[in-house]
Amino acid sequence: MKELDNGICSIEGIQASGYREGKYGVTVIYHRDSTAVAVYTSNTVHAACIDITRKHLEDGRISAIIANSGNANCYTKEDGIKNGLKLAEVVASKLDIPVEEVAVASTGVIGRQMPMDIINPVAIKSVEMLGNNRECASNASNAILTTDLVSKECAVESTLSDGTKFRVAGICKGSGMIAPNMGTMLGFVTTDLELDKDIMQEALNKAVDKSFNRVVVDGDESTNDMVVLMSTNDVSGDYDSNFQEALDYVCTSLAKQIAHDGEGASKYIEVECSGASTLNDAVCVSRSIVSSSLVKTAVAGADPNWGRIISAMGYSGVDFNPDDVSIAISGCDNTVVIVDRGHVTTYDDADLLTQAEDIMQEDEIFISVNLHQGDSSAICFGCDLTYDYVRINAEYTT
Amino acid sequence: MKELDNGICSIEGIQASGYREGKYGVTVIYHRDSTAVAVYTSNTVHAACIDITRKHLEDGRISAIIANSGNANCYTKEDGIKNGLKLAEVVASKLDIPVEEVAVASTGVIGRQMPMDIINPVAIKSVEMLGNNRECASNASNAILTTDLVSKECAVESTLSDGTKFRVAGICKGSGMIAPNMGTMLGFVTTDLELDKDIMQEALNKAVDKSFNRVVVDGDESTNDMVVLMSTNDVSGDYDSNFQEALDYVCTSLAKQIAHDGEGASKYIEVECSGASTLNDAVCVSRSIVSSSLVKTAVAGADPNWGRIISAMGYSGVDFNPDDVSIAISGCDNTVVIVDRGHVTTYDDADLLTQAEDIMQEDEIFISVNLHQGDSSAICFGCDLTYDYVRINAEYTT
Repeated sequence: MKELDNGICSIEGIQASGYREGKYGVTVIYHRDSTAVAVYTSNTVHAACIDITRKHLEDGRISAIIANSGNANCYTKEDGIKNGLKLAEVVASKLDIPVEEVAVASTGVIGRQMPMDIINPVAIKSVEMLGNNRECASNASNAILTTDLVSKECAVESTLSDGTKFRVAGICKGSGMIAPNMGTMLGFVTTDLELDKDIMQEALNKAVDKSFNRVVVDGDESTNDMVVLMSTNDVSGDYDSNFQEALDYVCTSLAKQIAHDGEGASKYIEVECSGASTLNDAVCVSRSIVSSSLVKTAVAGADPNWGRIISAMGYSGVDFNPDDVSIAISGCDNTVVIVDRGHVTTYDDADLLTQAEDIMQEDEIFISVNLHQGDSSAICFGCDLTYDYVRINAEYTT
Repeated sequence: MKELDNGICSIEGIQASGYREGKYGVTVIYHRDSTAVAVYTSNTVHAACIDITRKHLEDGRISAIIANSGNANCYTKEDGIKNGLKLAEVVASKLDIPVEEVAVASTGVIGRQMPMDIINPVAIKSVEMLGNNRECASNASNAILTTDLVSKECAVESTLSDGTKFRVAGICKGSGMIAPNMGTMLGFVTTDLELDKDIMQEALNKAVDKSFNRVVVDGDESTNDMVVLMSTNDVSGDYDSNFQEALDYVCTSLAKQIAHDGEGASKYIEVECSGASTLNDAVCVSRSIVSSSLVKTAVAGADPNWGRIISAMGYSGVDFNPDDVSIAISGCDNTVVIVDRGHVTTYDDADLLTQAEDIMQEDEIFISVNLHQGDSSAICFGCDLTYDYVRINAEYTT
């Protein structure tokens, strides 16, 4: 598997664009007659774009995606649907495709009607800038950002078992309102491999489960989450594990980029739970740790406060024997085992505590816990909780 | 029902004391041959004191409670049990009662052995100060505090249906690591009404469900939570709804005091969900709103961002029709209905938004949501998320 440099435009035939005016941006991804599938937020309250895209993707075929930032178009009723369709219509009329072949995604403030007089010209301008090059790819990944500080993209080339080369490339946005089950994130992933719609859906579900569904910034699940996978169908070949691996890789890379760019984050946190009886147990334990406000603030304060880790494990809902647990903290080069099968190593060796304190000063903190009760493991991604998270979210709408 | 001024010492025959040296405090509550019941944390990882108290309360009789602050005595294995029993022994030997008649509670840092050389003399001093007056009551409510800023107490006198007077009085601590299912909180409630142990347990469970289990500060459930109800058995009379009402009142008052004093909190938040199909639905929706980091930061920023409220309702796991929902925000004197059965009132009337902004400047914010699908309602208590929460918890152990 080889990483590629051209972002979403690493897939031949994909045209992308992005344009922004102030807080309103519009990204367009275009390839005529693509096969496409998606996963959506499970929030009972969901945006107009979710309804529109769900309907337009029913037959598994689209020709374009249009995504706007700055307004979530959520809790906006019939007018919201009309405005979402107007956005689709901009792309449809400019590219001469049916409006039903356009997927729509939105991110931004909830409960306000879309200012179409501002967004429409931005959308028109964006469509006019479509192309397949480095600049277009960057424009596309930038225009969907809201409170994100950096754009997020990943592209790889790999081969099927029979040697056929294929590519997977994606962009995403996501910074706050990030919880398991996706968070406020939009992800657009493309491939050139021709795949059956149902197989694509299954592959995407698997990849999202291991990636976007494992990111926690603040535990607030958004009304607008959407990940679309679209194929240009340029490469013939059957789905195999190498494709899944490439798709997982791209989605996981994008998910980690979201965690790194979590609102106000100063440190990235990765938590692995191993030795669990089931995958679900492993996910619950690692998610509980990475979601804990007290663990997150301890990481912000560079404090190896493992008591908060074991406490978060304890309220995860997973049954385990505290005396069998091991807990290790790692940085870039060094690992310190703080609890070894129930034995607190730092009681006997104060030097280990100093080493753990040094690790906690690093920018990326890896927490590994082992329940020693089975063979399942899972990794979750997150970030620390800082003054800046509070500042950003105390000031967002007003 | 009449509020009383003497805190835990409002119950005749109850002796209380508290003494603190630096971060280590010890509270003692004493009444020989009391009937007592308790509820405990549901965290898989729990402190030594939970095991000890559970065992000592098996027969429903104790003569004293000893509670220490500064060390949780959790994840401390056999030595933890020994140290917890040593604490009980201080009370037992000084008061000449069996050690099995002493309940033990602890709160503080997890994963460190109790510094018995420091805590023992504090405990001895505390026992020597036992008495039944205003000062003793204050000492008792103060010595259990950790990051709390204010002591918490409530006492009432009421009458049974047959006119018999009785009293209920309690103290508690709790500030951070506060989640549904109690949070890091210790509560000690006393009454003079003579009650059967099983009836007392049922009454306490009911009261805790409506009070301590409805407080959220940070969503981290502690390893050490405990609420004990003990009776001096001085007043004869059967349990009736007036006793439950008084017990609910005391527990709810204490729970609200915890929310007001949440770590770093600048504002108190109360969320009521009405019109739910079931009590459980009402609790889930109101808890989801009061737990949301985005709602909490919006309140900190005095921003009437109701989109975050409807989003938190949507991911609560409760099924409802977003178009039937009403949302109102109230302060001390004024109420603004922002969403009226799905209609956003502020779209037509900008003045309402200004009024909502004014309300959000107040110190106590009341959020009411109505699902309009049934007759159940529930209230949850919480606080905003501020810079100070981050500061306090980034600096706690080191």
